[in-house]
Amino acid sequence: MGDARIGLIGLGTMGAALASNIAEKGFDIAVFNRTTQVTRDFAAGAGELAPKITPTETLEAFVAALATPRAIILMVPAGDAVDQQIAALKPLLDPDDLIIDCGNALFHDTDRRAAECGQPFLGVGVSGGEEGARHGPSIMGGGGPELWDRVEDIMLAISAKHEGEPCAALMGPGGAGHFVKMVHNGIEYADMQMIAEIYGLLRDGAGMEAEAIGDVFAAWDEGPLKSYLIEITAKVSRARDAESGAPLLSVIVDAAGQKGTGRWTAIESQHLLTPVPAIEAAVVARNLSSRREERAAGEAIFGAAPQPFEIDQGLLERALIAGKVLCYAQGFVMIAATREAKGWEIDLPQVARIWREGCIIRSAMLDDMAAALADHPGENLMRTPHFAALLKGSHGALRQVVAQASLNGHPVPALSSGLAYFDTMRTGRGTANVIQGQRDFFGLHGFEHVNGKTGQHGPWAKG
Amino acid sequence: MGDARIGLIGLGTMGAALASNIAEKGFDIAVFNRTTQVTRDFAAGAGELAPKITPTETLEAFVAALATPRAIILMVPAGDAVDQQIAALKPLLDPDDLIIDCGNALFHDTDRRAAECGQPFLGVGVSGGEEGARHGPSIMGGGGPELWDRVEDIMLAISAKHEGEPCAALMGPGGAGHFVKMVHNGIEYADMQMIAEIYGLLRDGAGMEAEAIGDVFAAWDEGPLKSYLIEITAKVSRARDAESGAPLLSVIVDAAGQKGTGRWTAIESQHLLTPVPAIEAAVVARNLSSRREERAAGEAIFGAAPQPFEIDQGLLERALIAGKVLCYAQGFVMIAATREAKGWEIDLPQVARIWREGCIIRSAMLDDMAAALADHPGENLMRTPHFAALLKGSHGALRQVVAQASLNGHPVPALSSGLAYFDTMRTGRGTANVIQGQRDFFGLHGFEHVNGKTGQHGPWAKG
Repeated sequence: MGDARIGLIGLGTMGAALASNIAEKGFDIAVFNRTTQVTRDFAAGAGELAPKITPTETLEAFVAALATPRAIILMVPAGDAVDQQIAALKPLLDPDDLIIDCGNALFHDTDRRAAECGQPFLGVGVSGGEEGARHGPSIMGGGGPELWDRVEDIMLAISAKHEGEPCAALMGPGGAGHFVKMVHNGIEYADMQMIAEIYGLLRDGAGMEAEAIGDVFAAWDEGPLKSYLIEITAKVSRARDAESGAPLLSVIVDAAGQKGTGRWTAIESQHLLTPVPAIEAAVVARNLSSRREERAAGEAIFGAAPQPFEIDQGLLERALIAGKVLCYAQGFVMIAATREAKGWEIDLPQVARIWREGCIIRSAMLDDMAAALADHPGENLMRTPHFAALLKGSHGALRQVVAQASLNGHPVPALSSGLAYFDTMRTGRGTANVIQGQRDFFGLHGFEHVNGKTGQHGPWAKG
Repeated sequence: MGDARIGLIGLGTMGAALASNIAEKGFDIAVFNRTTQVTRDFAAGAGELAPKITPTETLEAFVAALATPRAIILMVPAGDAVDQQIAALKPLLDPDDLIIDCGNALFHDTDRRAAECGQPFLGVGVSGGEEGARHGPSIMGGGGPELWDRVEDIMLAISAKHEGEPCAALMGPGGAGHFVKMVHNGIEYADMQMIAEIYGLLRDGAGMEAEAIGDVFAAWDEGPLKSYLIEITAKVSRARDAESGAPLLSVIVDAAGQKGTGRWTAIESQHLLTPVPAIEAAVVARNLSSRREERAAGEAIFGAAPQPFEIDQGLLERALIAGKVLCYAQGFVMIAATREAKGWEIDLPQVARIWREGCIIRSAMLDDMAAALADHPGENLMRTPHFAALLKGSHGALRQVVAQASLNGHPVPALSSGLAYFDTMRTGRGTANVIQGQRDFFGLHGFEHVNGKTGQHGPWAKG
């Protein structure tokens, strides 16, 4: 038997980065890739990490290279490939060998695999892109604590650190890690969409060039919005097309791709009965962005939507602060909702803590969120004192921006959904009474009377 | 063997109304209900329809009362009850006996039952509430044409009529009828939510009393918004609480119920990759309406959201016209999307035609929609000449209303989502370029260059 502490299958961008990270932190690792040349190239490029890495060219050799009980990370594309890889591995494994799926699995699949695959199983969400995987991602584990313990030292070692504290933790059983990662990605969609809406107001409203827009985002990255996404928006805005020298943003087609995790979040939020309108708006926006011909046809009929208008940059910054708080509030409420639906006791402050570094949505604000969620367990972030104060100072800007964008033809679906969420959630007496009246009129569904009686009807109910 | 032309199981509100409707149109019908007393009460109250109705007290007697090959309508609660009823029936049936589920089944279940139940099977969506079921609903059939033919005379006879034309038709195979009914209900959610938002502006913005609001809706029911939902909103607004004499709307608790069909529509739209943001916003609004304590807590912290302001009623009417067109446009695009996903060739103009009468969303506008969809196959309703002209005359009002509502704290999630959809779908050059830039920066996802090359990267990509 071999003595590699851990194995990794799948040396794509993320897998290769994670394997290098593990080796760099001093763990002996065996690696395998279906296409052997990929394994050879990886080993050849390992440099000073080579002594820690055992490249293997068959699954049998890979398994043989591992110390028992084995721990094997899968970094293959989510979906059928994972099941196929597990099926191929199983005949070679001992009963207590641990499989760790670090891919982008849908958490339902992870629940199923944990229950049915017949091996000890962990489903681990890894966020941070290639850079994160290589130098420190945020790691969201799911599975039994006794299984997590077997690899916790590795997970903590390779993870990002926030002031020395590892951004890796066990979220809960089964698919809990992949669930938290999914909501992370949903929030990421909404955060990016809100930034894109503000970008549009700067570009088409204020008529600014990409570089100047980059300066605005760079300035905001020094304030309350300080975050990875704001930082890279500045860099993306300032970048130039290598070929033409034009601003890079001017040559990128405006059709956004998606790998489905934002959509999964929207679907799951409906199943969990926990609204995430900002994420839904972001998913819609990505979908509509891909309908370029239709949008051009609409412009031909109605004229181009966005019109130039005077914009206060400070207003935009505060609007984005408000929108961001509201979108994260929705995401944390969604995670909390799994307590009832799945029986998972996910530690919300811990989620915020491991998102502070390594992952795509890392930001200064998440540190305050971790504190607010710890101080006010179960409370919607928007009603915790710190963020309530932040919203009090920013919702006025959000409503001004939504109003001006609406009047001037700039689509702001995520920002306006955030505002609607905020105003709905601070309206004691809403307008659903008229919906209940309608439903009783046409379907005799009955309504609750303000006197407390339920199943009441209007005068149209006979008998 | 008996000679009843058709049978019906389940004499709840909708089942009893449908059975009476069938009998009234001259068809002999046998009826059965699990609780025998319900059957007896129904027969006792049948009046002049009694000669056409055969009440039965066992499933065996019910089956024996039917002419062969039998046709049996199920009107039991959607879900397990339908499967249980089918299982109970099957041992008593001949192989060519037809089961017709007229309940509110999820179309996936109908697909499954049609494929697996082992009997000829139709899934039929019936809309119109109790009144519609009794005097003429809109009927959306799903299943094989040869099965539909066996009961088409009954379906046409009992359905609503638009200028003599029956509002009943076969939509497509399997679950197609229940699918169209589901989208109908999704549109219904969005239409009702937009009305509720306008109601809120009249109540909390203009400070009007319920009765005066009823007058506004009654006046609108004479114009382009003429529809069942506007008509009943006027009636609901003018109604009084029997006990206190207060306006009925003032005593109805503002927490809207939902039976799930709007939510199903939102979920399916995500699976079909066809955005229905107005429906999503309506589902979110119903969910948040039920969080009364949270909303009160929010009001305690931030103050009540909606503030009084000057409102032009004509502006509100035109905004509602624009919002309505955009919400229906989304619904029809969603139905069209099933062609690719399910291979169903649903006839869109026919859908609009059978929605013109009988169902909850019946309206004058649906007649124009049927014409527009027939004249411009495959086109988004918003870009057909008639509705493009309507939008040109109303989108300005929609943006004014969204702007004023946003500034004054009135949540208008569905109206603002409609506006964002409109502006997005007429923006040739959107802002998703920045999202693609961000995705390439953190995940090397690659972007499409305006020169046509795909898989391009920014300067951060090495090698």
